[in-house]
Parts: sequence; structure tokens; C-alpha cells
Amino acid sequence: MKIALDAMGGDFGPPNLVGGAVLALREYSYISKLFLVGDPVQIEAELRKLGCNDSRIEIVHSTQVVEMSDRAWSAVRRKKDSSVSRAVDLVKHGQASAIVSAGHTGAAVAASMIKLRTLPGIYRPGIAAVLPTETNVFVLMDAGANIDARPEHLLQYAFMGSVYSSHVLGYKNPTVGLISLGEEDVKGNEMTKEVFKMLKKSSLNFVGNIEGRHLFEDPVEVVVCDGFVGNVILKTCESISVAIFQWLKHELSRTPMRKVGAFLARESFRTIKDKTNYEEYGGSPLLGVNGICIIAHGSSTPLAVKNALRVAAESIEQQVNPHIIEEVQRYHEATAPLEPAIR
Amino acid sequence: MKIALDAMGGDFGPPNLVGGAVLALREYSYISKLFLVGDPVQIEAELRKLGCNDSRIEIVHSTQVVEMSDRAWSAVRRKKDSSVSRAVDLVKHGQASAIVSAGHTGAAVAASMIKLRTLPGIYRPGIAAVLPTETNVFVLMDAGANIDARPEHLLQYAFMGSVYSSHVLGYKNPTVGLISLGEEDVKGNEMTKEVFKMLKKSSLNFVGNIEGRHLFEDPVEVVVCDGFVGNVILKTCESISVAIFQWLKHELSRTPMRKVGAFLARESFRTIKDKTNYEEYGGSPLLGVNGICIIAHGSSTPLAVKNALRVAAESIEQQVNPHIIEEVQRYHEATAPLEPAIR
Repeated sequence: MKIALDAMGGDFGPPNLVGGAVLALREYSYISKLFLVGDPVQIEAELRKLGCNDSRIEIVHSTQVVEMSDRAWSAVRRKKDSSVSRAVDLVKHGQASAIVSAGHTGAAVAASMIKLRTLPGIYRPGIAAVLPTETNVFVLMDAGANIDARPEHLLQYAFMGSVYSSHVLGYKNPTVGLISLGEEDVKGNEMTKEVFKMLKKSSLNFVGNIEGRHLFEDPVEVVVCDGFVGNVILKTCESISVAIFQWLKHELSRTPMRKVGAFLARESFRTIKDKTNYEEYGGSPLLGVNGICIIAHGSSTPLAVKNALRVAAESIEQQVNPHIIEEVQRYHEATAPLEPAIR
Repeated sequence: MKIALDAMGGDFGPPNLVGGAVLALREYSYISKLFLVGDPVQIEAELRKLGCNDSRIEIVHSTQVVEMSDRAWSAVRRKKDSSVSRAVDLVKHGQASAIVSAGHTGAAVAASMIKLRTLPGIYRPGIAAVLPTETNVFVLMDAGANIDARPEHLLQYAFMGSVYSSHVLGYKNPTVGLISLGEEDVKGNEMTKEVFKMLKKSSLNFVGNIEGRHLFEDPVEVVVCDGFVGNVILKTCESISVAIFQWLKHELSRTPMRKVGAFLARESFRTIKDKTNYEEYGGSPLLGVNGICIIAHGSSTPLAVKNALRVAAESIEQQVNPHIIEEVQRYHEATAPLEPAIR
């Protein structure tokens, strides 16, 4: 498998990205080629530091970086030689089968849309984040690709999330819920009310509105929302789980007795911490583009980058795109007269 | 202090609401009158069950209830004799100084807007939820009153949240953050970009965009977002903290050693559980209406209802409304030529 890694993006740049690449190459023999795209001087320095001269690495030179303060679309258009654009080019030209980026999410989305295009029939791609419950996982889509979404985009997220849920996670006829302000059918804002009607009429296993408070208790298998809300959910989950463990740590060290208790129960904390640690998930696929693009966390550690490369390899193997095309085509054929030509 | 409680709303109806009322009367001698608004038969049955014949209780008869499946505004207009409308009437006519409702949030907001009106200069009220960090608290506004918000509404939430933060929580010149998708100035959706510009120009202590992931680590003192997003944040926090404690409980009971550890450290868990338990907070003030309205959680337990009544009493004492009027007036005077007459 051949993967292109944007080696410059993310909050920590080459050290964490190259670090993660080296970890991945050590662990995953199925990676046959890993393109590290960016500044060769910095990338080589990191490789030297880690004592890595794996022949599967190919450094691809790029002179520009999309900064977090850049505007996504104009940055992709303006910075023709950015690491993210060059990495996407490798997929476009068939040299790599997937791209991984921990950089500017909007830029990765824009570069993928411009260079790879969306899948036939898909208006906008969306990020499918997989989140853990106590006993299982669910897909949250869109987790931040499309922040000014329209109702028809959310409908397609429901389709794409369902395809991902059934073909990758193995759920049969997955349940789909729409994030809203209450479970009742009438609850929601203007957009969710519109989406509700569309989902109700669709062939999906739509169970209705769900509230944030039901995300982790008795959850549905596909959670649909716009990219702004999805991103807020993802980041809030991260924030509160970090906060709870921080508080717990302080509380557990307050008395000698609590310290002993914490020591005896330490494995429990580790299990849950691992479960709620984004580093273990690594990255989320951007579904709906004609190719494979994995969006990693901006503050990815080397461990998170390694896992994002694993997710990329899994996505290459799973090939969900043909299934998405098929599902969306089936829907469009059934509802064609109702759909305007351009969105 | 005289408070009107909508005794019919909420997921559990009179048992929890009357139960909470009885707890509050036992604990808070400063409540001089508590109106229980709703079906006298059910309310009296609950009072009898609890052996309560406190003379401070006055039952106010109402024959209708706004159901969770009703549309907020039409329900308030159609069901003239609903418990929430009658409770707001008591405040309107000066018989009570505050209303508490655990029923349909939208209906409580609509009834308050129709009967009490908004404060001079305020376009829309918003719910100010107070959330805990490890060492302190912050205000999240709007937590769900206004789900199709416009930029100027969010600007006013920042003002109202700041007034609440300084006058009630005691923060001096509180920091204000805007929920967005990244910290950089250019990040956000169409609405937040507009709000960003407004906040930047305002006299508030605006620190810029914040992400969900920074809510609980090094947080700002006032967090501004629209009601849809705020509600999702609130409910997601609730959901994930419940889930983490549930997982922890299971993990801690897996082996005898862990069980001993959990026993020794039990006070740590209790402290944090209390901190993240919405029941302890009880209710959130709806700021921006010309009166005091406390929105309690739909699934309020008697303990949560009791605490919501405490929040109502505190709000009566704190009287933030005059400060809100003053702040907004000052802003409007400074920017008057830029503001259209009607929103």
C-alpha cells in the first residue's frame, strides 16, 4: 500500500509527523511506500534523529505550507506548491492510494475537492469520525469538513455514514439519528427540520432526532449533523474527558488512602483513558471525495499519526467509495424529479 | 421571596416537581411563597404523599400542559391555560418574582417573551448555563433558547453573559470567547465570522475564537454560541460524563483488587460526580426577558428542582436585569447609526 503523508501540517509540524511515519513503518509491513511531502531538510533531519533509513520512504519536495491562519480555498489556489496540495497530487496521479493530513482541515478538504473531485452525485464531502461507547462505536458525520452545510448535504452524510457503518464497522442496516434539540419530531432549527423530512422519506433506518445527551447511552449507529456542530461535539468530548481525568488525578492524590486506592485500580483508569484518547483513533476518513483522504487531529502526537496511517491503510483495503456511489445513485434514481440539477 | 413553579412540565411531571418544591421549602426559609401551578388534584396528591402542608404553598389552577411534542409558539398562543403560561402570568402581575420551569424550553421562552417582553434594547433572550471547570465555572450562552440565531443576537449574548459573569460570578472584566472551529481569526462559519467582527469592535474583553476542546482547559469566562450549538455542548457534556462514570464503574468492579481500590478512593469519585452532575446546578436563568425565568432540566429530579428554586431565589436577590439594560444601552448609544431599528 502506498500512502502520502503531508509532513508539514499540524500544530507540531515535522517532528510529530515524521515520528509517526517511522512508528508506522516499523509496525505495518503492509505499507509498501510512504511519501513524506514537505521540506526535505526538516524531514531528513527528523529521520536522522530517529535513525530511520527505511527504503519505503520517499521524500517529495514542496516549498509551501498552508498555515492554520490561512483561508482554506484561497490557500489551496494560491499556494500551488503546498505540502497538502502536493500530497493530494500523488493520489490524483495514482502514485499513492491515500493521503493523510494533520494540517489545516479546510485546506485538506479543499485540495481534495479541487484535485480529486467529489464522487458522482455527491455535493459535499464530510468527515466520518468514529466515536466509542461503552460497548461499541458509532459514526459521527460531518465532523468538520462542511461548516455552512445545506439540508441535502446532511441527507448525503446520512447515506455515506450508513455505508461506512455497514461496510466498515459491520452494522447491519445501521440506525441513523439526527442531532437536534429534543427527540420529538417538531424539535430543531430550520435546517434540521428540513433534513428530518428528507430522512423520514429516505430508505435509511432513520430513528429520528437525537440529543447530545443520548450520544453515549443507547446510541444510534450513525449520527448526522452539520460540520460546525459535529466539530463542536468532537472537541467537546475531547475536552471534557481530558478534564474529568485531570480532576480525578488531583482528587486521587489528595490523601494517602486515595493514593493506595488509585494504585490498586490503576488498570481501570488506563482502559478508559485509552478508550477516550483520540490518539488511538488516529484519523477520520473524508467521505465523498473520489479518493481516500484521512484527516488527522491538528495536535497529533507521533502515536496519533501512526494510527492515522493505519486508518489510511484500512480505508484502502475497505474501498467504501463504490458502495457510496451505488447507494447515492439508487436514492437519486428514486427521487430524481425532485432534485434540482446543481447544488 | 415569591416564586412560581410550573408543576406540570418536565419528563416526570408533578412527582418530581412537587417533590423538589417540598425539599426547597424545608431547606430555604427565604422562600415566603411558592406557587405550584397546574392540576390541583395531582399536586395535592403529591403533597399528601410527602406529608407536606406548608402554608407557604399556594396551588394555582391550570387545566392545560404544553407537551414536549407541541410547537413552542403556537402552544403558548393556543393553550391559554397552560401551567407555564399561568406561572409566567404570576410574574407578569407581580404576584411572584420569578418563574421556574422544567417543561418545554421553547414554550417557557415563548411565554416569557410574549408576556414579560424582552428588556429594552434586547432582541432575543438566551439561556446562561453555568458550567464547572476544575477550579472554577464559566457561563455558556445561549444554551438553547434561540435556535435560529442571528449575529446581533450572539453579540448581545456576549454582553448579557459578561454582565452575569461580573455581577453574579464575580469575575472582573470577564474574558469572552466565541465557539468556532479553530482559534484563528479566519475560522468559522458565516455567522461566527460576522459575530467575530462585532465582538472585536465591542468594548468587551473578547479573546477571540475558542474551540470545544478548550472549554474546560484554561477556559474563558463567557462562552458565546447560538442556542443550537450551546444546547448540543451542554447535552454532550452531560452524556459523556455520565458515560465515563458508567465505564469506570464497570471497570472498577472487574477484579477484587480494583474493587478495594475503588472503595478506598470512593470520595474522589463522589466529588467529581457531584461537580459534573446537572442536578447540583438545578437551573439556568433565561437572560434578556423583563423578569426572572429559570429553565430547569427536562429530566429534573426533585434535587434538581430544589436547586432550580435556589437559583431562582439567588436571581431575585442578584437583580442583573438593570445592569444588562445599562450595558446594552451603552453599546447602542456608541453604535446607534449602525444599527437598524428592528431585528
